Parts: sequence; C-alpha cells; structure tokens
Amino acid sequence: SNTLRIAVLPGDGIGTEVTQATLAVLEPLAKRHNLGLDFEHLRAGAFCYRDTGTAMSEETFEKAAKADAILLGAMGWPEIRTTDGTEIAPQLDLRFRLNLYAGVRPFRALPGVPVALADPRARDIDLVIVRESTEGLFFSRDRGTVTHDMAEETLRITRPVTEKLARFSFRLAQQRAARRGRKGTVTLVDKANVFRAFAFMRGIFNEVATEFPDVAHGAHYVDAMALDLVRKPWAFDVLPTENMFGDILSDLGAGLVGGMGFAPSADIGDTHAVFQPAHGTAPDIAGKGLANPTATILSAAMMLDWLAGKGAGQAYADAAAELDAAVDRAFADGLRTPDIGGSDGTAAAARAVAARIGG
Amino acid sequence: SNTLRIAVLPGDGIGTEVTQATLAVLEPLAKRHNLGLDFEHLRAGAFCYRDTGTAMSEETFEKAAKADAILLGAMGWPEIRTTDGTEIAPQLDLRFRLNLYAGVRPFRALPGVPVALADPRARDIDLVIVRESTEGLFFSRDRGTVTHDMAEETLRITRPVTEKLARFSFRLAQQRAARRGRKGTVTLVDKANVFRAFAFMRGIFNEVATEFPDVAHGAHYVDAMALDLVRKPWAFDVLPTENMFGDILSDLGAGLVGGMGFAPSADIGDTHAVFQPAHGTAPDIAGKGLANPTATILSAAMMLDWLAGKGAGQAYADAAAELDAAVDRAFADGLRTPDIGGSDGTAAAARAVAARIGG
Ligand SMILES: CC(C)[C@H](C(=O)O)[C@@H](O)C(=O)O
Ligand SMILES: CC(C)[C@H](C(=O)O)[C@@H](O)C(=O)O
Repeated sequence: SNTLRIAVLPGDGIGTEVTQATLAVLEPLAKRHNLGLDFEHLRAGAFCYRDTGTAMSEETFEKAAKADAILLGAMGWPEIRTTDGTEIAPQLDLRFRLNLYAGVRPFRALPGVPVALADPRARDIDLVIVRESTEGLFFSRDRGTVTHDMAEETLRITRPVTEKLARFSFRLAQQRAARRGRKGTVTLVDKANVFRAFAFMRGIFNEVATEFPDVAHGAHYVDAMALDLVRKPWAFDVLPTENMFGDILSDLGAGLVGGMGFAPSADIGDTHAVFQPAHGTAPDIAGKGLANPTATILSAAMMLDWLAGKGAGQAYADAAAELDAAVDRAFADGLRTPDIGGSDGTAAAARAVAARIGG
Repeated sequence: SNTLRIAVLPGDGIGTEVTQATLAVLEPLAKRHNLGLDFEHLRAGAFCYRDTGTAMSEETFEKAAKADAILLGAMGWPEIRTTDGTEIAPQLDLRFRLNLYAGVRPFRALPGVPVALADPRARDIDLVIVRESTEGLFFSRDRGTVTHDMAEETLRITRPVTEKLARFSFRLAQQRAARRGRKGTVTLVDKANVFRAFAFMRGIFNEVATEFPDVAHGAHYVDAMALDLVRKPWAFDVLPTENMFGDILSDLGAGLVGGMGFAPSADIGDTHAVFQPAHGTAPDIAGKGLANPTATILSAAMMLDWLAGKGAGQAYADAAAELDAAVDRAFADGLRTPDIGGSDGTAAAARAVAARIGG
C-alpha cells in the first residue's frame, strides 16, 4: 500500500511524553497491519515560541498541512504568554487555518477505570461531543478589544459552518448506530432561549435534520445539558455544540470517565484532521514519566479510522479497532496509571497496550 | 419592628406551586420570629406575555423595584416565545435593570439527599458560585445581530462590575470563613488563556484580591473547573465567574447535590435583590403538585439573611438559620421529594419543613 505521511507535533510538557509513548505503540501495530506510515516530527508550541519567537513557523504549518494527518501532543505553558496575557496555543491556529470545524470528543468508560458517578449506569456512558472548533466565541481569539474600563469579544455563528457541523454529527450518529446496532440520536446543545445567534443555529440544525430521517434529533440548553451530563450521561449519543460550550462540556465529560487522561479527540475538516489528547501540557508532572498516554493512543486510533474513511484501506480500520481493543484489554487486565491512583507510568502503559496488539 | 415589603412574582408553571409552598413555610416562621413581612403578589412571565402582550408591565417593575426584596418562582414557557425565537424571561430583565450583578448560587449536600458522585467526600460539598448576572455574554441579550448567513453576539466585561463582583466574592468568603471556622478561598473562573476579555477580568480580580489578605485566592480556566467540579468539588469555596459560565457551572453544581430542586439562588446588587430557585418552570410536571419546593424555600432563607444584613435586625438572621435547619432536619428525618425518587409532593414537603420550624 501507499505510504501515508503523518506530521507529528509533540508540543510542550507531557505532550512530548505521551506522543513518544503513542509512537511506540503505533510501530508494532503498523508492522502487523502493513500500514505504510511515515512520521515527520515538527516543532511547535510554547517553548518553540520562547526560543524562536514564533509558536509554529510557516514552514512547519505548510508541512503539517501537506501531511495526510497530524498527530499532536499538547501545547502551551503557563509562564510563556503573548503580550496580551493569553497563552501560546498553535493547536488553535491549526483548527482555524485548516478549517477543522468538527472537534470530535468521544467519552466511554474503559473496563476497570473508575467512573465518577455513583449510579451503576455510568459504566454505559458512550457519547461524543462534537465541538465546533473554528468559530463561536473562539472566532474572537486575537480579536478581543480592551480599553482601560471595558473588554469585548464577539461570538460568531455562520450558516455554512453550522450546516457542516450538523451534517457531520448526523453522519457520525449513523456510523455509530450501525456499529452499536441501535438508532442514533443527535442532540444540539445551545442557548437558544436567550440568544438570537443560538436560535439561528438551532434553526439551521433543524433544517439539516430533515435530511436524516433515520436519526433521532433534539436540542438541549447548555445549562440543562451540564446538569444532565451529571444526572444521566448514559442517555446521550452525539452532541454537537458551539466552540466554547464544547470546550467546557468536554472537560466535564472527561471527568465522568476517569479524567483527561482518557479523553481522546480529533479536529476534523473536509480535507485535514488533527488528532490529539484533550488534555494540556500538565506542568506539574511534566518530565516525570507519569503522564497517562491513553488519550493520545486512543486519538491515534481515531486517526487510523479517519484515514481508512479517506480511502487508506481496510487495514487502517482494522488496526484502529485492534488498537481500541488493546487499550480496553490492558485496563481490563489491571493497567493502572497514576492519574487513577495506579503506579504504571507513561512507558509502562505504552508497553501494556503494545503487548496486547493482535492478542 | 417595621414591616418589610416583599414583592412575590410566582411566574409560570411550577413557579406558582413552589412559591405557594414557600409562603406556607414563611408564615409560621414570621409569626415565631415576629418578622413584619408584607407580601405583594405581582404577575409576570410567559403567560402574562401571552395574555397582556408584556412579560412584566412597567407598573409591576416599579412595584418590585420599590419592595424591600423580591421573591420569584420561575418564568418562561417553551411554546411562548418572542419573535426572534428566544424565550420570555423577565427575570433576566430584573437582573439587568436592577443591576443585580452577583448571582449567588450555593451548593451543599443536604442530609439524606443522594449525591451524584461515588466519592464519599461528595457529601462535604459546600461551595458557592457567584455568577456575574448583568453583563458577560448576556450583555448581548436582545442585541444579537442575525443575517441570512451569520449571527453575532457580544460578550462584554467592564471594570466597575468586575470590581464589584470580586469584592462581593471576597466578602462572602470572609463571612463563610467566620461561619465555618476556616480560611476562605476565592477562585475566579475564566478563560484567560484564550480571550483578552478574560485576561482583563483576571487582572482586575488580582488587583481586588490585594484588599483581602485574609482570603486565599486563585484562578481556574472554565474547562478545567468543569472537570474539577466532577473530580473534587469539595475542594472549592467561592467561585466568581462570567454570566454564561456561571449559568453552565451552576447547573452542573446542582447536579452534584441532587438536582435543580436543591439549588437556591439570589441575584444581589448594591440596593436590590431577587431570590429564586435556579430551576425553570418544568412544563412536564407543572400543575401536578410534584415540584420540589426546597430550592425556593432555601432561597427565601437567603432572602431573610440578606434582609438582616441590610439592617432588618437579628430576628431575620435567626429566622434564616432556623429555616435552613428545618429543611436539613426534614430531609434527615426522611422527607423524599419525587425528583429524588420519593413520593412527597410540593405541599407535603412544605408541611414537613414547616413542622420543624423551631423544633
Ligand atoms: C488549551 C486550550 C486553548 C484548548 C481550548 O480551549 O480549545 C483546550 O482547552 C482544548 O480543549 O483543546
Ligand atoms: C431561564 C434562563 C433564561 C436563565 C438564565 O440563563 O439565566 C436560567 O437558566 C438561570 O440560570 O437563571
């Protein structure tokens, strides 16, 4: 098969550690499935900004944009900030510049990993937040106006992006329905009771919904959804939402299933995609080999699956399924990372997963 | 003692039921403590809009504004909307027009009421979200612009309101510290890593913090806070935040301690204040006598406490403490409302609390 080029941007802090662990898992997997993966390491992030004056050079951006997929660790560092006080986050630039409108964040309880809620149904959590990732409140990034007495940001929602986000969510629900053997449900999360922009968003969503009669659909106010994600998260399937809302709800979702170490993500557009753990650079544990690489490993599985969907071949889909299964089995067999009170560090976790590939 | 005038706006749906239940509890309490409370019932809400064309008449607004405090049930109804698709919510008008910048939402696990989290420390949850309630994203209410292809809203943060919000939060932490016998902590919840407006907010918060050396302070990104409210809510004390963030996080907080039926709130300004449950009008159970009145009863206790702080006298503070204790005792003794799987309806819950006043 053809060789696919993967741009690897490890980033800062534990980003480099979880990326290394993931590559160590991908190697035997690629061999077994005969995947032609060619990894190109690229530098970007807060330390890159400190050392070179730019968080991601144009050259790096071009290389990443030309790759078949982008695998990213984590970026940012509390003490390294731009002059307006915000942090260095070139992963946001990638989302905007590559039009990665669908921020796909699946949440599922892995076997053996403790869940936060007391209700036993919490083990059945299996939902996906689809965070719009190119506009919403984040449209305002770098555009906020600040005077001595007042600051303003602009939340923007457009029809084309909302249509794409909605179609993406309905298609995802169809795929999940096929895998899970039950009808899918898409629930838009908005604040249409108060804001015209969200009433606008809901209107477009309802229009698109008519194209997918096989998928159930509804809408929920964001505050009610925050409540329901605590009360009955097992009742939800696919949840498209605005950028800022998705940022908040996806951390909530991660908290339900063991924390950020278990929250993979994919930022997907019509042609490009970035795969990265939803967590940050974790300065408190960086460099200690303690970071849980699971979120990154699961993100890599999402990458293989996406590549398969882009025509890379069935071997990629098989490898993705096998990687997911290996992670499940590793935890079912007793793997316990430090974030859930265990003592298996980054390398040990990677070894445990690698050992179960094809097993 | 002087007579205090309380404007009572029951509103729509279960709003009228929980208000009636609360007044039934306040009556014996007022008698016992010799409180001179004079209740004036006023009409406002979605059905008022449907019937009269205005959700709250100017006359009603003037009467509410002249009262010593405002007790509100719940307002809004899914099918009754303004032409731009948003809901009828005159409670928001009250917040804006009376400058009720501090939306105080305390969360505490009542004895016997099941909490959502598996960790036993969840019974120690005792935190207060202070939702800024006059600007932030809600500044944009009625101001959003919508074209065929695009919609925009403006998030506004101002220095004077942020200073007031911060001072209010630090003073609240001081009062709580005195009651709880331990140092208070104020944690600002923002998104200063991405938005200039939130970097601006954090800067002002840190300035104000220097006025309160006896209170610990910190800041948290809103996504990380959504995670930590699931992971370790018992670690937090007072959490001031922007309007939209506070709306979301306070529903999450309610989910932790038994749901919206247990979430009181107070919208407080320099001179006026509105007390109301954080929940909505619950069309699904409205008119059935099933609504849990606890949030409204606890809101009424907050009202009495606030009136005491405004110089109404120690009897009001004593009555507030007694009302809180009566609610605790009622649930400790086995009161179980339908929202937590019990069969004690609105009137039964009110009776159970009333029976324990002074008990
Ligand atoms: C690091 C931060 C800028 C980023 C975001 O807010 O999008 C992160 O929280 C995420 O969810 O990917
Ligand atoms: C009903 C709604 C307009 C209101 C809000 O968003 O403020 C409610 O959710 C609240 O929290 O008081």
